[in-house]
Amino acid sequence: MQRVFEVDPWQVTTHELNPENKRLQESMTSLGNEYMGMRGMFEEQYSGDTHQGIYIGGVWFPDKTRVGWWKNGYPLYFGKAINALNYLKADIYVDGQQVDLAKNEVQDFTLSLDMQKGVLKRSFTVFGVHFDITRFVSAAQKELADVHYTLTSRDGKLHHVRYDASIDAAVKNEDANYEESFWQVLDRQNGELASYLVSQTIENPFGVPQFTVAAWQSFVGGQRIKQTSSDQAVTDQFELTVPETGSTSFEKRVIVTTSRDYADQASLVQAGDELTTTLAGQDYHSLYQAHIDEWARRWQKGDVVIEGDPEAQQGIRFNLFQLFSTYYGNDPRLNIGPKGFTGEKYGGATYWDTEAFAIPVYLGVAEPEVTKALLQYRFDQLPGAFHNAQEQGLKGALYPMVTFDGIESHNEWEITFEEIHRNATIAYAIYNYTRMTGDRSWLEGDGAQVLYNIARFWADRVHYSARKGQYMIHGVTGPNEYENNVNNNFYTNYMARWVLQYSIDQYPTIDAEQKAKLGITDEELAHWQEIADKMYLPKAEVTLNGQPTEIFEQHDTFLDKDLTPVADLDPANLPLNQHWSWDRILRSPYIKQSDTLHAIFYFPDAFTEEEKANNFDFYEPLTVHESSLSPSVHAILAADLHREEKAVEMYQRAARLDLDNYNNDTEDGLHITAMTGSWLAIVQGFAGMRVRDGHLHLAPFLPKEWTKYSFRLVFRGRVLEVSVDQTGTKVALISGEPLTIDLDGQDLHLA
Amino acid sequence: MQRVFEVDPWQVTTHELNPENKRLQESMTSLGNEYMGMRGMFEEQYSGDTHQGIYIGGVWFPDKTRVGWWKNGYPLYFGKAINALNYLKADIYVDGQQVDLAKNEVQDFTLSLDMQKGVLKRSFTVFGVHFDITRFVSAAQKELADVHYTLTSRDGKLHHVRYDASIDAAVKNEDANYEESFWQVLDRQNGELASYLVSQTIENPFGVPQFTVAAWQSFVGGQRIKQTSSDQAVTDQFELTVPETGSTSFEKRVIVTTSRDYADQASLVQAGDELTTTLAGQDYHSLYQAHIDEWARRWQKGDVVIEGDPEAQQGIRFNLFQLFSTYYGNDPRLNIGPKGFTGEKYGGATYWDTEAFAIPVYLGVAEPEVTKALLQYRFDQLPGAFHNAQEQGLKGALYPMVTFDGIESHNEWEITFEEIHRNATIAYAIYNYTRMTGDRSWLEGDGAQVLYNIARFWADRVHYSARKGQYMIHGVTGPNEYENNVNNNFYTNYMARWVLQYSIDQYPTIDAEQKAKLGITDEELAHWQEIADKMYLPKAEVTLNGQPTEIFEQHDTFLDKDLTPVADLDPANLPLNQHWSWDRILRSPYIKQSDTLHAIFYFPDAFTEEEKANNFDFYEPLTVHESSLSPSVHAILAADLHREEKAVEMYQRAARLDLDNYNNDTEDGLHITAMTGSWLAIVQGFAGMRVRDGHLHLAPFLPKEWTKYSFRLVFRGRVLEVSVDQTGTKVALISGEPLTIDLDGQDLHLA
Repeated sequence: MQRVFEVDPWQVTTHELNPENKRLQESMTSLGNEYMGMRGMFEEQYSGDTHQGIYIGGVWFPDKTRVGWWKNGYPLYFGKAINALNYLKADIYVDGQQVDLAKNEVQDFTLSLDMQKGVLKRSFTVFGVHFDITRFVSAAQKELADVHYTLTSRDGKLHHVRYDASIDAAVKNEDANYEESFWQVLDRQNGELASYLVSQTIENPFGVPQFTVAAWQSFVGGQRIKQTSSDQAVTDQFELTVPETGSTSFEKRVIVTTSRDYADQASLVQAGDELTTTLAGQDYHSLYQAHIDEWARRWQKGDVVIEGDPEAQQGIRFNLFQLFSTYYGNDPRLNIGPKGFTGEKYGGATYWDTEAFAIPVYLGVAEPEVTKALLQYRFDQLPGAFHNAQEQGLKGALYPMVTFDGIESHNEWEITFEEIHRNATIAYAIYNYTRMTGDRSWLEGDGAQVLYNIARFWADRVHYSARKGQYMIHGVTGPNEYENNVNNNFYTNYMARWVLQYSIDQYPTIDAEQKAKLGITDEELAHWQEIADKMYLPKAEVTLNGQPTEIFEQHDTFLDKDLTPVADLDPANLPLNQHWSWDRILRSPYIKQSDTLHAIFYFPDAFTEEEKANNFDFYEPLTVHESSLSPSVHAILAADLHREEKAVEMYQRAARLDLDNYNNDTEDGLHITAMTGSWLAIVQGFAGMRVRDGHLHLAPFLPKEWTKYSFRLVFRGRVLEVSVDQTGTKVALISGEPLTIDLDGQDLHLA
Repeated sequence: MQRVFEVDPWQVTTHELNPENKRLQESMTSLGNEYMGMRGMFEEQYSGDTHQGIYIGGVWFPDKTRVGWWKNGYPLYFGKAINALNYLKADIYVDGQQVDLAKNEVQDFTLSLDMQKGVLKRSFTVFGVHFDITRFVSAAQKELADVHYTLTSRDGKLHHVRYDASIDAAVKNEDANYEESFWQVLDRQNGELASYLVSQTIENPFGVPQFTVAAWQSFVGGQRIKQTSSDQAVTDQFELTVPETGSTSFEKRVIVTTSRDYADQASLVQAGDELTTTLAGQDYHSLYQAHIDEWARRWQKGDVVIEGDPEAQQGIRFNLFQLFSTYYGNDPRLNIGPKGFTGEKYGGATYWDTEAFAIPVYLGVAEPEVTKALLQYRFDQLPGAFHNAQEQGLKGALYPMVTFDGIESHNEWEITFEEIHRNATIAYAIYNYTRMTGDRSWLEGDGAQVLYNIARFWADRVHYSARKGQYMIHGVTGPNEYENNVNNNFYTNYMARWVLQYSIDQYPTIDAEQKAKLGITDEELAHWQEIADKMYLPKAEVTLNGQPTEIFEQHDTFLDKDLTPVADLDPANLPLNQHWSWDRILRSPYIKQSDTLHAIFYFPDAFTEEEKANNFDFYEPLTVHESSLSPSVHAILAADLHREEKAVEMYQRAARLDLDNYNNDTEDGLHITAMTGSWLAIVQGFAGMRVRDGHLHLAPFLPKEWTKYSFRLVFRGRVLEVSVDQTGTKVALISGEPLTIDLDGQDLHLA
């Protein structure tokens, strides 16, 4: 654990420049507006360890797959989000001396991410000049990034500051497979109003489109003294005079356009020109205000207030802030990468975490359209899903583990070909959207193409075991990646059966046009029903609390393992993924993240209290939670079993994962998808939020550590506010039509 | 299937220059003397597709591991045999025109590998001159490679031939991970008697020694007109006058010394100088004769004669020839790489094939010292085996899947960490040597370090399953690599149990000095006995030939698979490894090579006839034999069950694997270790050779297709000759003391 920022309800602040932890700080002070984003590196020269990164949503490169031994069907490339042109780059001189906080004598340093407003502030004094810097990536105008400076003399003297502002395309990824630069420069120009540079990703042999990204820099304040350009950069040099008293201000505005939105370079450039010109007529204050107003709207729908635990308050707001910065449903071609705009690892592509964890959050904190965009994304990627299935000789659609364009990107057979449970979660998200919003139009419309092609995949993937007279699924990896190529993973079989049954049950109401496209026959449906009826689900008897107890067996022969619980392991072995060889992990009973229990997480009403308790009691002691998404699921399960202390313990394992650097790797970037977990743990866990037959249910408890918590919740056109304190629960209707909900088993009418 | 050479008992000959199959021809005309070897590429320029390769035994490079996703314990490098300096390189001109058979008009082309003598001959006519070329790598003098030319005018005119002989260090591997050159040149000199070049492998960051390889070229005949050297080569230019009638001859002798045999560059160079000088006093004929005499000695011990089937005759001699060329026990630091000196794939390292298949051959065709050298090799690599086990948190010794220096080189977890059955085969080889030769000194001496440290590994690797009350081995890959990470692979468990029991049983006679080093306590032995007594061996009931029948289950839950036999598959699916994705292969029942049956192969007397027949009948129809080593094992098993036709069918699947290019990949090099299979199939299979309680047993049958076969056999200081024809079997004692053997269940006294 490592805390480099102070605790505060809305700020992530430090007064220390921390060179050993600079990367960590940069990850945590990332900004984004879904369209683009960046780590919190400084604009100006910093000669110590730093990781500069600016990323454009949906702009990626197919990096040739690097693998030791090829296998049929392996992807040819690994899509990765690439470090895009550095449009914040600055060289600053005070009276001829270069500002470089790694080297200068620095006073009054403050770095503060304001989560409420979505701005990053930094201030410091060097060479007698105090700098107040505000940076934001506009939530109101997607193409706009803005840095504003207020400079004040601290020593009563006049100072000359030179500010060389650049757009620099000479950037690389730290983690490129083959260490190449992904960019080439097409054009750059200095202009009266702005300088701009047009860059493009290099050619690739895979037929993946090249992306063109252009950036304009325009300014308010200062005196421009020179403009230069080189092969890979444009620069505007400014002189700023800092008076003896009072301040001077200076603003750099950046506009970014990309070929994702424009058919050709000419229109892309024209759009950037026009936007730059339009913004020139607006002052800083109006741009700033538009941005913070949008953030205010977001918090109005989705804020969570916690009293009595300042760390938890900061934690939940930080998680929501970074999640919303990464994605807010504006562009259905985009999705939520595991690190968002905060780092390079995992390539920035889409994982099943989106459907499993992010969609439930967006369903609760934002309008349905936000989630619709994420469902649309999967519909649009159906061609890729067909391809992935065909690579494995299977019918229907197989959604990928890792992707930008719908084609599988990951290249480990035990994940790529075998971790197929993800395909059921894609279907589950359609069900989840439908029951949460009451809107059946997606399920019965285009969503049917997704659902029924997934069903076709499952029907083809099972095999009939003559020995047991049942349908089975051999050779999979479940959500618990610490078991590979196992047979009859309970969760996978359960979900396959659910997909088929749900597809059968919904079929009557699917639009005729969709049915015509799908061409599902009665025989096919009958076969699906047979599979569902005869799906093998491993169960076994164990001794639990001294009693013979039936549990679901995580997969065939799981119970033959050496079942030493985690608590009996020498802690020096943990985390396992850093200490044990892979074979040792695989044959151990240790569970990386909820696997069997994940079925209960998805379908809490489909199991008896006894089943839920027995399986939790058996599997939780074997769970190491080495995926950051795991503890939150257990928090929800524990809360469901009224084990409040356990629920809180699990919540705390991930609530401040990045703020307190639990996994010791936040310097590589934040765990964006894991951030969904703390909201889910609070709302679905502590507050027991469920939707049953179109009705909202709540059964909150108050963690001992807290005096109060409250959250906004979006539900079927309403915004509710739920408050839980020591006196009990209050629910208020903030906006929308009257509604009856179930609170602790009693009807509650809201108006 | 593809045959590019004519059938002949001792020659591999073609009269066609075959540009589309040049690489194939080059693989098949490889030469070697264990110390070094080369593919059959031409010495002179050939501008068509060709794969030049000269390899020095034990000279390798640690190529940085390339893997997509790292795992704890993965090796840092993949050892690979590297293409060494091209000391045969020649540029030849006839009357100023360059000899390049890809471009010239060629007559009278012959290419012929003489297996009896171990020489490669080539002849052709271009530009009016007929070339007769003989190449050999001396079996008598390891450092010597020799190329001899006889040039004759075919048109009655005088011709001037220029021969530029080079040693060229600018060579690369085609399959380098990172496309670099592995060599640097330390020194090169032209001299009166010879020119030489000293090369060295480039530095590596792994602490693996750099190898220095030096080559001298000296000549007999011709007129030297010039000597040159460049950064990476030395050249001697010769003029040869081809008279109107008669011929002229020209010989290039190459001496190669390496740092494997000399402590420093100075002594390495001195040795090469001295050898070159010594050989200068000998004429070509004496060098040639010494070489062919050695080959005659080898055939005298190990030849196999087949009558009535010329293809089989050529096949078995080809296999033995290439095997002996790769390894003949002269250097215990060397071993048998899967491709020997014939290509780059698999890196040239040591696999468990050596113990499983090659040692049984050498035990039968050569003196015990040859096999002793292979056992010594594993003893010398104990430190590496300890390291490999420690990487996986296990005790004792774990021999690697792939290695040069004893450290594991392979980087796929399902093989590297899990295909541990190899460790039992290492122990089995000690048992096999002991029972075949009657020599217990290795087992009771240094061999004990190998055996008992392997036993320690197995004792640590098992776990106790409380549920079944037995010891189990979870998470392995058996010999059948088409199943990964399975539980309780019958073969692995059986072999683990055997290793422990054999170790316990032999313990009393182990030398006291060895026991002192091992420090095995009574408790440890008692624990091993407990494991052996309680080892879980999966068995199950199937319906075979309409009857309920018990078989050994290949691993837990194997019988839940969809058990469609191979014969019912659409042949377009085969081979599976080229058509199916990995997950599809893994969950299928198809067996790449003998797995459960491999236990019966090793211990034919430990199973009842019924067990052997039932398991063969169950597993053979599911076996795809996509490893070239597999069919021979099934040939032996079938012969043991008196299923003669099946035995012959299996024999034929691999007997001419390379000669007829069955797998369509012989252009990459020969399948050296697979070549052991045809000898084993004939001797252990058709002739039923076994050793029981120190006695040799034979129970031969004659394949219908053959009129006779005979083979020499080395057994406990004797050389026997076994002949089988339609009248029956005759056994003669060729050399050594009188001996009583068992022929078809009857004692036979040989004198």
